[in-house]
Amino acid sequence: MTADPIFFPRGDKHELELGDKLQPKFDAEGLIPCITVDAATNEVLMFAFMNELALRKTIETGHATYWSRSRGKLWIKGEESGNFLRVRELRTDCDQDVVLVKVDLIASGAACHNGYRSCFYRKLNATSGRLEMAGGERKFDPALVYKKKS
Amino acid sequence: MTADPIFFPRGDKHELELGDKLQPKFDAEGLIPCITVDAATNEVLMFAFMNELALRKTIETGHATYWSRSRGKLWIKGEESGNFLRVRELRTDCDQDVVLVKVDLIASGAACHNGYRSCFYRKLNATSGRLEMAGGERKFDPALVYKKKS
Repeated sequence: MTADPIFFPRGDKHELELGDKLQPKFDAEGLIPCITVDAATNEVLMFAFMNELALRKTIETGHATYWSRSRGKLWIKGEESGNFLRVRELRTDCDQDVVLVKVDLIASGAACHNGYRSCFYRKLNATSGRLEMAGGERKFDPALVYKKKS
Repeated sequence: MTADPIFFPRGDKHELELGDKLQPKFDAEGLIPCITVDAATNEVLMFAFMNELALRKTIETGHATYWSRSRGKLWIKGEESGNFLRVRELRTDCDQDVVLVKVDLIASGAACHNGYRSCFYRKLNATSGRLEMAGGERKFDPALVYKKKS
């Protein structure tokens, strides 16, 4: 990296926490956690990791872009379906080791590959100790989507 | 672990994604990412990791409990100040490798050690490429808090 208008080298604690320079911390594997929320409601939609290129692409293109650890490649959410996640705002946390993006939910209304708005569609019932569905109706049936692909 | 009413061994993909058993995936370091949101507004307040004991304590006590990687110990949020984060709901994501807790914001009104409601108090200005403060007023002055401790 030579001239780089987006990322700056990590600063001291004060600069990291209260400064105006984006100084993201990538872990030993070159990744930073990213929380993706619905820009309209703040509902958490999904959680994934970005590497430096994914974060740069997210900022440059406005399409949420992650690093797929399972596939070992850049993952532009919606690249196959055309249902990109449009980034309305990008935030970082106090010590800049996490990123948060606020996005417009895609046309299908589902961010999760299981057809739900959010990946967090189950909550723990404290009495039974079991998970309960809490994600509302499915926006699409993944069985049909996967069938088409196979 | 013998009899364990809370966690179950990891199941197959269908059970993990659509079942009713909590089967959390801890990474090679024994940690699972946890997103903490305001139960009233869904605003993301903070991001931290839990180990198995922290997740168990969170469920059993109803106080959000994390694993502090920097201090290498269990971290009950608010244990020093008394401002616990009361857990109203616990969720997991589709493949159960992330946890989300919805909490009542503590008495001080700030989840971040810098005195802001949320740790995500800065957003990127896409034009200038710099971070802008976007967390509202500080609920407390960390300089005073830290002074008291030293």
